[in-house]
Amino acid sequence: MCQLLGMNCNTPTDILFSFEGFHRRGGLTDHHADGWGIAFFEDKGVRLYIDDKPSVASPVADLVRRYPIKSENVIAHIRKATQGEVRLANCHPFMREAWGQYWIFAHNGDLKAFTPPVGGRYTPVGNTDSERAYCHLMNHLRSRFASAPGPEVLFDAVAELVAEIRQHGVFNFMLSNGDCLLTHCSTHLHYIIRQAPFKAAHLVDDDVTVDFATVTTPRDRVAVIATQPLTDNEVWTALHPGEMALFMGGEPVRRERLPGPLAPGACGCPA
Amino acid sequence: MCQLLGMNCNTPTDILFSFEGFHRRGGLTDHHADGWGIAFFEDKGVRLYIDDKPSVASPVADLVRRYPIKSENVIAHIRKATQGEVRLANCHPFMREAWGQYWIFAHNGDLKAFTPPVGGRYTPVGNTDSERAYCHLMNHLRSRFASAPGPEVLFDAVAELVAEIRQHGVFNFMLSNGDCLLTHCSTHLHYIIRQAPFKAAHLVDDDVTVDFATVTTPRDRVAVIATQPLTDNEVWTALHPGEMALFMGGEPVRRERLPGPLAPGACGCPA
Repeated sequence: MCQLLGMNCNTPTDILFSFEGFHRRGGLTDHHADGWGIAFFEDKGVRLYIDDKPSVASPVADLVRRYPIKSENVIAHIRKATQGEVRLANCHPFMREAWGQYWIFAHNGDLKAFTPPVGGRYTPVGNTDSERAYCHLMNHLRSRFASAPGPEVLFDAVAELVAEIRQHGVFNFMLSNGDCLLTHCSTHLHYIIRQAPFKAAHLVDDDVTVDFATVTTPRDRVAVIATQPLTDNEVWTALHPGEMALFMGGEPVRRERLPGPLAPGACGCPA
Repeated sequence: MCQLLGMNCNTPTDILFSFEGFHRRGGLTDHHADGWGIAFFEDKGVRLYIDDKPSVASPVADLVRRYPIKSENVIAHIRKATQGEVRLANCHPFMREAWGQYWIFAHNGDLKAFTPPVGGRYTPVGNTDSERAYCHLMNHLRSRFASAPGPEVLFDAVAELVAEIRQHGVFNFMLSNGDCLLTHCSTHLHYIIRQAPFKAAHLVDDDVTVDFATVTTPRDRVAVIATQPLTDNEVWTALHPGEMALFMGGEPVRRERLPGPLAPGACGCPA
């Protein structure tokens, strides 16, 4: 399986601290060494960096670690290949444009016998189950909405399709159009909200501490979402298996357990 | 206006030497300081780096200068804004997916009173004339072909539309799907083919020389295409105003002056 990292904020924020720990799981503190990627929204634009090298050995990851890109929505992914060989076209996140917005998607999981219809507006470039699911999702949304749906309508439309897709296997994902960040948890996803009064946080994967009180303003609010908690001195909230969550302005504005079954073994299986 | 750089090769090749000169035109040896970008195809995947900082001051350009990414098709662009403010969403190259291929586009020019129909499969995210032209082109191709057209058919289909678009102004562009690289010259585009016997080349924009004989094999062939020649000791070929060229395997396999008028002032005007 892979690991996911997301950030949703009420003000453009850099992700350096979280990425510092996260990228070490790509080949150093964990075994997700089959490529990685990260996408940063800047207003409507997107910086998308993908690399088929392990994130701990990637010159692109070095750039991200040194370049404090400020963004309100970030999605990152480190890959442990299950379906699709190790190559650039199979690295997440994936990007497509719909209704004049970029849409970014990353998936952690493994969908078995999942062959959605082809020939819609969006077609996978690589050969992962993840990109198939993403294109299926985007084809569904595009055929249903003539213009970009608002976040609540988006939640309901995605939920319908997720209930179908997750019957094929583990389907933890993150999706963002730059306005909101939508997640689904099949097995493991945790989040933390950082807001005033800010405190110091210490990474699990490296002996690094940041005192957020020194780098924030009192009105900042940041949600960080990750497969596994990234810090060891803060309380992270686990999403329930089968739950979808919508993050806006640095907090979860809607959390809902979707009706319908998860795939056998999806619930609570080891990451 | 902006400047364009393209590379099309018969074997994956790094673009470090050409990029070294080209990126200096983004704010140092020339005044194209409103952002820049570069896209590298790796098989079907794409590394797309864009930045709204001048390329001479961009940490992302530093990465590209240090990381010898090998690619058969590259498109780069440094921006001097004419339409659309300086922001990430307006940086070229632009990327869309069609028929399971990524398509990359960059434009140098200025299209006046150009308002193609909206509501197709592709919609601009930013507000440049360039992205409008790109989406118009891709909408046209998608509505015409159920699967990806071959290079010759692509040439003819693009040529039809270019004859229409270029009546609105200067429309130098590069387009690639990773298999071939298509260019149109309204004003200035030059190319050089490097093949055995390889020689040394010296940059215009910096006192840097590379002896390609030491870094190539006898069967390598590389076409480099740029708004203005990048070296001062090689003979570059100028495309004619009004000419389209198709590059494959490191050489122009088709060059054709398109019938029909160029926009007033487009032919031969200063870059």
